[in-house]
Amino acid sequence: MKKNLKLGLFGFGCVGQGLYHVLHETKGVKAEIKKICVKSRNKQRPLGEDIFTFRKEDILLDSDIDVVVELIDDAEAAFEIVKAALQNGKAVVTANKRMLAEHLREIYDLQQLHNRAVLYEGSVCGSIPIIRNLEEYYDNDLIKSVEGIFNGSTNYILTKVFDERRSYDEALKQAQALGFAESDPALDVQAFDPKFKLTILIAHAFGVFVKPENIINFGIDRISAVDLKYARDHSLTIKLVARAFKSENSIYGLVAPQFIENHHPLSSVRNEFNAVSVEGAFAEKQLFVGKGAGSYPTGSAVLSDISALTYDYRYEYKKLHQENRLTFTNEATTEVIVSYSRTGDVSVTDFEKFTGGFQGNGQQSMQGIVRLEKIREWSRRTGINVILAPGSEVKPLVSVEKAALDYA
Amino acid sequence: MKKNLKLGLFGFGCVGQGLYHVLHETKGVKAEIKKICVKSRNKQRPLGEDIFTFRKEDILLDSDIDVVVELIDDAEAAFEIVKAALQNGKAVVTANKRMLAEHLREIYDLQQLHNRAVLYEGSVCGSIPIIRNLEEYYDNDLIKSVEGIFNGSTNYILTKVFDERRSYDEALKQAQALGFAESDPALDVQAFDPKFKLTILIAHAFGVFVKPENIINFGIDRISAVDLKYARDHSLTIKLVARAFKSENSIYGLVAPQFIENHHPLSSVRNEFNAVSVEGAFAEKQLFVGKGAGSYPTGSAVLSDISALTYDYRYEYKKLHQENRLTFTNEATTEVIVSYSRTGDVSVTDFEKFTGGFQGNGQQSMQGIVRLEKIREWSRRTGINVILAPGSEVKPLVSVEKAALDYA
Repeated sequence: MKKNLKLGLFGFGCVGQGLYHVLHETKGVKAEIKKICVKSRNKQRPLGEDIFTFRKEDILLDSDIDVVVELIDDAEAAFEIVKAALQNGKAVVTANKRMLAEHLREIYDLQQLHNRAVLYEGSVCGSIPIIRNLEEYYDNDLIKSVEGIFNGSTNYILTKVFDERRSYDEALKQAQALGFAESDPALDVQAFDPKFKLTILIAHAFGVFVKPENIINFGIDRISAVDLKYARDHSLTIKLVARAFKSENSIYGLVAPQFIENHHPLSSVRNEFNAVSVEGAFAEKQLFVGKGAGSYPTGSAVLSDISALTYDYRYEYKKLHQENRLTFTNEATTEVIVSYSRTGDVSVTDFEKFTGGFQGNGQQSMQGIVRLEKIREWSRRTGINVILAPGSEVKPLVSVEKAALDYA
Repeated sequence: MKKNLKLGLFGFGCVGQGLYHVLHETKGVKAEIKKICVKSRNKQRPLGEDIFTFRKEDILLDSDIDVVVELIDDAEAAFEIVKAALQNGKAVVTANKRMLAEHLREIYDLQQLHNRAVLYEGSVCGSIPIIRNLEEYYDNDLIKSVEGIFNGSTNYILTKVFDERRSYDEALKQAQALGFAESDPALDVQAFDPKFKLTILIAHAFGVFVKPENIINFGIDRISAVDLKYARDHSLTIKLVARAFKSENSIYGLVAPQFIENHHPLSSVRNEFNAVSVEGAFAEKQLFVGKGAGSYPTGSAVLSDISALTYDYRYEYKKLHQENRLTFTNEATTEVIVSYSRTGDVSVTDFEKFTGGFQGNGQQSMQGIVRLEKIREWSRRTGINVILAPGSEVKPLVSVEKAALDYA
């Protein structure tokens, strides 16, 4: 029943080597790596040179290879590989969240067109089987919301900064040394990486393809000593939270740091761990916690996809057919604490509802309810930091008066 | 591709009514309830009487019915229904953990013999899709351990006792009123229910069928005011923890209350929530948290199984074929705190390694390392309470000297 799959790998970095290791330590998966396509001719590699190639045709045009495993950094080059693989009748396993987030609708169409599967569990929250669960287990449940900590390196940094009182830079360097951080740390610390993952989950949870640029993201790279002091004084921690939810026929989403109370389930998710909370109409809240980064956890998720291909598994994107009138919108508000150093950068008129202002140590801050678009505006300017207030939720903007009333 | 399934229900209690509700609120599942077989002729029921029957043949011999959904209390009667359903060519969905734990090998054989599926996600940890994940997602991962809080009602009771300083009896009554506790509370508070669930998970995680009576269980019904005071004085809580793990070619398991430190992930699992932690060789620790009891969460799990039958899903019991030389054993030790009121009931010679003794308020206690069989012996006598020490693990007993050395 099970097939013996021949794999062609693109990329042999952290995840590729992790996959190689877990594949060879596992008895149950009938798959072997035939060829690995790499870019640099000068790198020292842990395997004999026979298995490596520098020409992508050696994999894409080899009719003996059933599955292309795409594990390179460059999103556009990765998309070209995925397209070519499908066109040549191969299934694809990838962990490239940026590529997926930016091309998910095309990848969906290409799967139908070429009748081949693209699986990508490793792209979201490492070892947590969240896509498979959304696809399989929640297919009959009406999902209300998906939220959590989707980025291991920023969570590692925030944990170190809070628990061990390390400096931000020191914690970032440590995360990179451990292989948790992307080669471009801006993708992590400016919250693009968790946004890409949120984009993918929105497709599987709600059946909506949204362009990542439509989702607002605010990073953790502007967090100041004043913010940290505020958190410590109030027994709070800061987490980078990604969230999406359904209300009426709209989907809302946001990725931003938030002050989190100590008893909150996300508060205990530490270091490179990720967490995804799924709220269904009947199953209610489910929390999945697991390692979100690292060579073996992600390699293990990639191997799970390869294993699923041995029995012809495909994503069905069921919600896409179930609920087709949903649209993504940023017409919502949330409560934030904004800190800034230049007087006049933030004013009371920026808020839908202004709660209060603080001043000290050459730093100023204001608290209140703002539209999500205001957070985007602030993200494009310098010297302004936004952190969601403790317990703050994103609320659909029915009307300004109504929203303000809800918060009152 | 999807079939339109006709269902025959046995039982219409808490879970049955939950299933009825979620099935009617869900668009995606092509299934309808044709007949419901109930026992009592006098109960008031929320549906018209046409759908009910008191004769099981009306379901079992109706060739129009594809799936028998078994949701009754009595384990032996349930097993007869499952057998008869399979013999009559019907697939089965059940949430009866006791029946499953006691007959899992026979149910496995019957599935092969009659070529029909038995699915039972609702039997373990309510809404948490743990069996499906062990079957599907971890099939290539070498699982080291499965542990967690598998019983919603005892966790509810322990939460209320600790957080709201309620009495034990008051908290139990509240749990029953909310529909979390079994009709026979002894199954919950004496830790049989979580043991049945552990038995089922051992089959899917390690491919071993173990008789539930071989697994040692110690309940929460002997917890005294002294134990609670000890916990509060040391910033600990008490949780009823079920655990199983693999070491060499052996599987070990135990269900017993344990003192849990505040920063431990299980510490924040409160009320009727359940948690399962799965440790794999490569994916490392994964934690799943969700509602483990209640009408809708369990009904929703049952519906997931029905939905899976529409695309001919079956458990493959892959680990059964992968690793067949594993055996279950109780040859292990763990560190416990034993409290008792009658002097002489517990003595230093009961311990492999004795750590210390305490006395006060007419209660005495001793701490140290014991063999698991000692815990079973104490569970059969009255007036002795056993709680695992904070951070205590179950350790294979290589030799007494070696084990004592490991702990030193």
